[in-house]
Amino acid sequence: MSPHSHPAIVLFAHGARDPEWATPFAGIKARVERELPGVPVVLSYLELMPPTLDEAIAGLVRNGADSIDVVPVFMARAGHVKRDLPLLVDALRRAYPGVAIRLAQTAGEADPVMDAIARWVVSLAQQPNA
Amino acid sequence: MSPHSHPAIVLFAHGARDPEWATPFAGIKARVERELPGVPVVLSYLELMPPTLDEAIAGLVRNGADSIDVVPVFMARAGHVKRDLPLLVDALRRAYPGVAIRLAQTAGEADPVMDAIARWVVSLAQQPNA
Repeated sequence: MSPHSHPAIVLFAHGARDPEWATPFAGIKARVERELPGVPVVLSYLELMPPTLDEAIAGLVRNGADSIDVVPVFMARAGHVKRDLPLLVDALRRAYPGVAIRLAQTAGEADPVMDAIARWVVSLAQQPNA
Repeated sequence: MSPHSHPAIVLFAHGARDPEWATPFAGIKARVERELPGVPVVLSYLELMPPTLDEAIAGLVRNGADSIDVVPVFMARAGHVKRDLPLLVDALRRAYPGVAIRLAQTAGEADPVMDAIARWVVSLAQQPNA
């Protein structure tokens, strides 16, 4: 990751009123942390739950991150992810010129994720009725 | 799947105004169809895109399905999936007493799906900056 040496990851999700909604994102965060010890992994939300993407990035930069992957953890890209998120990330790049901020593909559009969901659906369909 | 012998699968997603939004769900559907030849797999949506779950189930039953898995393809459970969907499925069970309708876990809450998303995030973080 040279010349940047302090990577961090932001998992960016939609947000909801119900705190329980965030459980799967916390599950993904815990798994990523286990695989990448020492790399800060934070959740952030488009709406209804703190922190915002701006707040999450500000916190990471304050703690020394200089290379940040922003990963939209959505099934598909609606207007927020398609139009608003790239603009938000551009603004953050201008705000932190010394920090490399990469915007990843949307999770649900990634082939390995579609593959895994399809395999899981197939496994459900093959379970006998209780 | 005895005594039911005509299985079918409904992938139930949120829906959006932008038709392109549905691309990942079509990708999952194609993968499942490839693994389960002869099993009808249909998409249905909570809002903004046809068909509704009711319409999807009616079509499958009309074509002879008697054992249907309804799979919520959401990252997490907001009110729609948590409260409304079980009620909708209960009403469909009453409407079609001869058809076994199973409601699956939400995709994003399934361990193999969280595992796959986490692995994909880790692989992104390990890519060098362009």
